[in-house]
Amino acid sequence: MKIAVLPGDGIGPEVTREALRVLDALDLGIEREEALVGGAAYHATGHPLPPATLALAEASDGVLFGAVGDPACDALERHLRPEQAILGLRKALTLFANLRPAKVFAGLESHSALRPEVAGAIDLLIVRELNGDVYFGEKGFRTTASGEREGWDMMSYNESEVRRIAHAGFRAAQGRSKRLCSVDKANVLETSQLWRDVVIEVAREYPDVALEHMYVDNAAMQLVKSPGQFDVVVTGNLFGDILSDLASMCVGSIGLLASASLGARQTAHGTFGLYEPIHGSAPDIAGKGLANPMATILSAAMLLRHSLGLADAADRIEAAVARTLADGVLGRDLGGSAGTTEIGDAVLARL
Amino acid sequence: MKIAVLPGDGIGPEVTREALRVLDALDLGIEREEALVGGAAYHATGHPLPPATLALAEASDGVLFGAVGDPACDALERHLRPEQAILGLRKALTLFANLRPAKVFAGLESHSALRPEVAGAIDLLIVRELNGDVYFGEKGFRTTASGEREGWDMMSYNESEVRRIAHAGFRAAQGRSKRLCSVDKANVLETSQLWRDVVIEVAREYPDVALEHMYVDNAAMQLVKSPGQFDVVVTGNLFGDILSDLASMCVGSIGLLASASLGARQTAHGTFGLYEPIHGSAPDIAGKGLANPMATILSAAMLLRHSLGLADAADRIEAAVARTLADGVLGRDLGGSAGTTEIGDAVLARL
Ligand SMILES: CC(C)[C@H](C(=O)O)[C@@H](O)C(=O)O
Ligand SMILES: CC(C)[C@H](C(=O)O)[C@@H](O)C(=O)O
Repeated sequence: MKIAVLPGDGIGPEVTREALRVLDALDLGIEREEALVGGAAYHATGHPLPPATLALAEASDGVLFGAVGDPACDALERHLRPEQAILGLRKALTLFANLRPAKVFAGLESHSALRPEVAGAIDLLIVRELNGDVYFGEKGFRTTASGEREGWDMMSYNESEVRRIAHAGFRAAQGRSKRLCSVDKANVLETSQLWRDVVIEVAREYPDVALEHMYVDNAAMQLVKSPGQFDVVVTGNLFGDILSDLASMCVGSIGLLASASLGARQTAHGTFGLYEPIHGSAPDIAGKGLANPMATILSAAMLLRHSLGLADAADRIEAAVARTLADGVLGRDLGGSAGTTEIGDAVLARL
Repeated sequence: MKIAVLPGDGIGPEVTREALRVLDALDLGIEREEALVGGAAYHATGHPLPPATLALAEASDGVLFGAVGDPACDALERHLRPEQAILGLRKALTLFANLRPAKVFAGLESHSALRPEVAGAIDLLIVRELNGDVYFGEKGFRTTASGEREGWDMMSYNESEVRRIAHAGFRAAQGRSKRLCSVDKANVLETSQLWRDVVIEVAREYPDVALEHMYVDNAAMQLVKSPGQFDVVVTGNLFGDILSDLASMCVGSIGLLASASLGARQTAHGTFGLYEPIHGSAPDIAGKGLANPMATILSAAMLLRHSLGLADAADRIEAAVARTLADGVLGRDLGGSAGTTEIGDAVLARL
């Protein structure tokens, strides 16, 4: 078993370090290799996703990813910016299913901007499509007939793209409360109409799952008004970007939320995937030892579960994080004062 | 002064009726004419936006709009559905600037899903572009090379489209706290890059306004985490659809929120516009006298202010609604029991 470790920029390296300490402590016999990505890779090689990094990821059973984003790259052309590295990895590795569980850790209900009883009811999973939509369509600038600049992006989905993410959504729902909410904007977009048609076709194969459709504007409202109504939500790349960040914020602590981006390839013990905290590179606090590494530690747990078939070890990590929080070891994102290494130590002590 | 009244479907007619009673009581000498729109128009004429309705709206100084949406039309082709009426009006009347103020009424902080101290800090205005973006680009279905169905929608903005909404945003900010947040997804979309470039150009004409840029996923998070940070938010049609509903829900009571969609045409006393509550047609409670008409009454007040130059009368209506709420006359949307006419009576009594 071999994993690729891509720490990236900003707080990426420091939070990744703590996740690796946790993996080491469990002594699981996982081989690992590190590579540059994002701004760090750009500065060293002139490219945010060097071929060697991509090759390493492809040759691994799973990728642990920190964060990318570097203000020093803001003035670069878009294809050289750090963010392109994560988009490039998703596309090149066919990571089409982004899973983002959102649930409030016991005792942390009061950290949400939502009222505690609303926040406490959240226990949902967003399944975001990650390989299509307006993200990866043709795009460009052109001059209109009247001589004006125009920016354009093609939004589209075809049947097989929708079908594979719909299956991922239905299967996730089968493993939870058997309810799936598909989010689109079918009253305006043909892309959404195709999405809805295909989701309805796929639903026939899952008679045990109750399917509901919701427009994206209403879904954004409902996620705030009564998030407890949702179990699994499946949606496209753009709407998923917005709704998954929204759901995370409803939980209250983006320093605690992990994500898995799964591909089609099967590994010896599971499904190949890339695992990353949902927070960004936070350049303002980078290198200061202030970042909360829990989201990355929990991402490592997801890697063990989904890509390496090590569910027991994943359970141990998740339980240790929950105990650390219950014991009041809180990072600055939660109003506490524990630093990066201190939180890593605390989790290690509870493994 | 003449207004067009388009009550529409579901609860549209009953909430519009109360708004008209309020206008009548003020005896402002406003002429008015009603026409069918939405499902009601489809059933009577075969078209959700009959030419006569559009002509009436065009010949008026402002339009009071109820709501459209009718489950009996769900199986129709998209161009015949009620929602197309509002999209058609926006486009045909060049209503490019949708203004949605979001502010919690005093005493109603506890009705938000957000914690009262977070909700109480909300006082923002969303300025949503309403005539372009992926809403009005070319769209369709096609068959891919491999024989699959594909749905597609072209997203685009040109300079003049962005420039006019940017001016609307900056001018609104000048009339408030002189802070403007422009929301886009420029790290992924060329449409957003053009948007951002043009907003920065327009900013030079407003040196007194502080401009900030935010990605849409972050904006959705920030609207929940700390909505008090926002004053005026300007964004495109699709992101505005999602964020404005989200902001409304953060306020807690979509039964209280009004909107103005302003065009380019000047009337004798202001700017031509269409005014509608942000809630929908709520078919489940239609005809039962249960709907809260306050959002429509407040939309009528916006009509008086923006299109008819009757700011004093608008102030009187808004003050009467605030007093009605402060006196505890709450609709079912706010956990109260006051019905549609009862709320109308209560507002009338406080004019
Ligand atoms: C960095 C950016 C391109 C990315 C996205 O929009 O997908 C991020 O917001 C995310 O959700 O992982
Ligand atoms: C009905 C629908 C087409 C419309 C929109 O998406 O603009 C609605 O959601 C709105 O915001 O007024």
